[in-house]
Amino acid sequence: MRCLLVYAHPEPTSFTHALMERARDILRAAGHDCELSDLYADSFNAVAGRHDFTSVDNPDRLSLQGEQARAAAVAAVSDDLRREQQRLSRADLVIFLFPLWWGGPPAILKGWFDRVLAFGFAYREGTRFETGLFRGKRAMVCATTGGTAHRFTDGGTYGSIRQVLWPLEHCVLDYLGLDRLDPFIAYAAPRVDDAGRQAYLDAWDRHLRLVLRDGQASGGV
Amino acid sequence: MRCLLVYAHPEPTSFTHALMERARDILRAAGHDCELSDLYADSFNAVAGRHDFTSVDNPDRLSLQGEQARAAAVAAVSDDLRREQQRLSRADLVIFLFPLWWGGPPAILKGWFDRVLAFGFAYREGTRFETGLFRGKRAMVCATTGGTAHRFTDGGTYGSIRQVLWPLEHCVLDYLGLDRLDPFIAYAAPRVDDAGRQAYLDAWDRHLRLVLRDGQASGGV
Repeated sequence: MRCLLVYAHPEPTSFTHALMERARDILRAAGHDCELSDLYADSFNAVAGRHDFTSVDNPDRLSLQGEQARAAAVAAVSDDLRREQQRLSRADLVIFLFPLWWGGPPAILKGWFDRVLAFGFAYREGTRFETGLFRGKRAMVCATTGGTAHRFTDGGTYGSIRQVLWPLEHCVLDYLGLDRLDPFIAYAAPRVDDAGRQAYLDAWDRHLRLVLRDGQASGGV
Repeated sequence: MRCLLVYAHPEPTSFTHALMERARDILRAAGHDCELSDLYADSFNAVAGRHDFTSVDNPDRLSLQGEQARAAAVAAVSDDLRREQQRLSRADLVIFLFPLWWGGPPAILKGWFDRVLAFGFAYREGTRFETGLFRGKRAMVCATTGGTAHRFTDGGTYGSIRQVLWPLEHCVLDYLGLDRLDPFIAYAAPRVDDAGRQAYLDAWDRHLRLVLRDGQASGGV
């Protein structure tokens, strides 16, 4: 199996980084090919714009969707986007690893969605959800949060984690036709002690092994 | 009244830009002070990192929240963030204008949240929602979508617009203690004709005038 880890955290000693390394270790030890898009390390450009294309149809007015369609057809996609699109095309399993900031992925990962998931490459007219272009691939969120698990429940301060993740899980992953696995969430990661972090790593380990064994995961800790 | 428009679209001839200009015209004509953060025109850096600070406490390990707290205390915030924070501090009404991409704001606006809404400036321990630091200020979303209104209803393809906007409206605006006004959404903006766009601009006009008159808006078209 080919796996792609799309990882977004600025600090290599972060717990999110530890979760990424654990995933890479497990996947490689199980004999799977594992690519890493380390968005901070790669200085990935988060901002969609003219630079997404090596040439444009209309230099006077930027229509992102229109230029994306053309760029996909005539191979005018910028080098960084072509690399990420090739990685995504090759992958059977994609895992997005990030800290939840202001209810969503860090901007550098949001920019990966904005730019890499271009019209003509990731979707076209009439291809969404059941007809999404990435049917047959699997995808999963692995996130750390500052807030406790209790705050991410129905009626909790932030609403349920599924409610918070809805735009990402439904409007991105489901939209693309990806087979979405249960997310793994390390709640209150900055507040737990060493034993708590070890427990999270062990739970993540089990979560991933279930995915590899059954094709499904059990959801959370 | 002092207003701040935080606007995120790469194309000056876009309909989102027209909505921004209309808001600015109405607010200024009504005698209000109106500042504009044009994130694309300002080449706003979307990515939180070491450059958010003019000095750091720990050069070996980047703890964003820790450095944000220190930077707020010792005035070590980068120039671009200080400018945005001052604009936000001055504002009585903040309007976020953007196209909905992949269920959320473009990365350049997500990065504005990630970076400008720093610990120590926008929130502290124990200050959230009813105790949020920005109580007394008002905020509103004005967004364009590719999908039709029908797709953003309960049971619609993408879920209700409130469900999609939940992380932004609840986990950002409500969290900060902002008095949140009904959003204005121009659905299927790229697909409507000139008359449809004019109707949207007229509806936006009415929406804003209600806000200015009653302090509340009526919600959508």
